[in-house]
Amino acid sequence: MEFYSNNISRLIENLSVLPGVGTKTAQRLAFHILSMSDEQVEKFASAIVNAKKGIHFCNECLTLTDSDICPICANKERDHKTIMVVENTRDLAAYEKTGEYNGVYHVLHGTISPMLGRGPDDIKLKELIQRLHGDIQELIIATNSSVEGEATAMYISKLVKQAGIKVTRIASGVPVGGDLEYIDEVTLSYALKGRIEL
Amino acid sequence: MEFYSNNISRLIENLSVLPGVGTKTAQRLAFHILSMSDEQVEKFASAIVNAKKGIHFCNECLTLTDSDICPICANKERDHKTIMVVENTRDLAAYEKTGEYNGVYHVLHGTISPMLGRGPDDIKLKELIQRLHGDIQELIIATNSSVEGEATAMYISKLVKQAGIKVTRIASGVPVGGDLEYIDEVTLSYALKGRIEL
Repeated sequence: MEFYSNNISRLIENLSVLPGVGTKTAQRLAFHILSMSDEQVEKFASAIVNAKKGIHFCNECLTLTDSDICPICANKERDHKTIMVVENTRDLAAYEKTGEYNGVYHVLHGTISPMLGRGPDDIKLKELIQRLHGDIQELIIATNSSVEGEATAMYISKLVKQAGIKVTRIASGVPVGGDLEYIDEVTLSYALKGRIEL
Repeated sequence: MEFYSNNISRLIENLSVLPGVGTKTAQRLAFHILSMSDEQVEKFASAIVNAKKGIHFCNECLTLTDSDICPICANKERDHKTIMVVENTRDLAAYEKTGEYNGVYHVLHGTISPMLGRGPDDIKLKELIQRLHGDIQELIIATNSSVEGEATAMYISKLVKQAGIKVTRIASGVPVGGDLEYIDEVTLSYALKGRIEL
C-alpha cells in the first residue's frame, strides 16, 4: 500500500489482524483513529497496553482479571456452593448480563475437541476438579450447544457425578421469539425432549 | 460492566468508540487483544500512537501523510497536469488500487452539505483553487455519487470552468457484474444518459 505513508500502512496492517476485520474495515478504523484527538489516541493506546499488562487468571474461577481474585469470586453475597462452568470470559459476561445467576463460575478457556487435537488437559479441567470439595451443591454446565461444547459437557458430567455432586446442563431449545419454521431439526428435537410440564 | 476487571472494561469502552464496532464486537476484539503476546500488544499500541503522531496534510494534495509531500505528489513520473478531486484519503486509495490513473490528486476532506451546515469553506476548496494555475490540463471530479458528492461536483465545476480549465466527472452507471434487475432507477437513468457509442 505505497499510496499510504508507512505509519498509516503499519496501523492498517495491525488492525487487520483483529478477528472479523478485513483490509477495508481496517482502513476505516485507521482513518477514524487518525481523526481522533492526540489525547484520545494516547488514551486508546494505553488502554490496550494496560489491559494486557496486568491480566492473568482469577485464582479461583480462572476468568481473566487484573486482581488476584475476580470481583465475582470476591463477592461474599454470591452463592459459592453453585458453580457454573463456561467456555470463556465472554460467556461468563453473557450470563452476568441476565442478572439471573447468583452463583460463581469456572472458566474452562476452551473445549475438548478430538477433531482439533484438544484433550481434557488442554482446558482448565484439573482446576475445576480441585474446587469440587464437599461443600459444592450444584455444578451447572453452560458450555455452548456445539459439538465440542456438548462433548465437553458429557465428559465433565461423567467425571463429576462419580464424586457425588449434582450436575445440571442449561436447556437447549427454541430461542425466545424464535419461529419454529426457521429452526433446525436438531434444536427442535432437543426442545421436544426437554419439554416441561405447565 | 462490573463483571470485567477495570482495565478490560476500559479497553472495551475504547474499542466500542470505533465506527461499526458495538459492545459485542468490542468484547471480541478486546479478548483477541488479550490473547496476543506482550510483544504483539506493544507493537499494536505503538502503531496507533506512531500513525497519529507524525500525521498531517500533504503540502500539495492535502492527503494524510507523514512527510511534507506525499509519495504520489513527490513522484516525478506522474502527470502533474491532471488532478483528480476526491472526498478523502480512502477514496484516493481506491483509485490507486485500480492502477489506471497516473495523475495526481486533491483531497477535499469532506463535501458541501447545506443539510449538515457544511459550506465551501469547510472543505479544502481554497487549496484546490490555488493549485489551478495555467499548466493544469484537466480536473477530474471523483466525489461520491451521493447527493452531497454531486452537489460538491457541481459547485467545483462551475467555479473551475470560469478559469477555463477542462473539468470532467467520473461516469455513473451500472457496476460491472451488476444485474439490471436489482439496480435502482436513478442509476439506470444515469447509465442511459451516459451511454457511449460502440
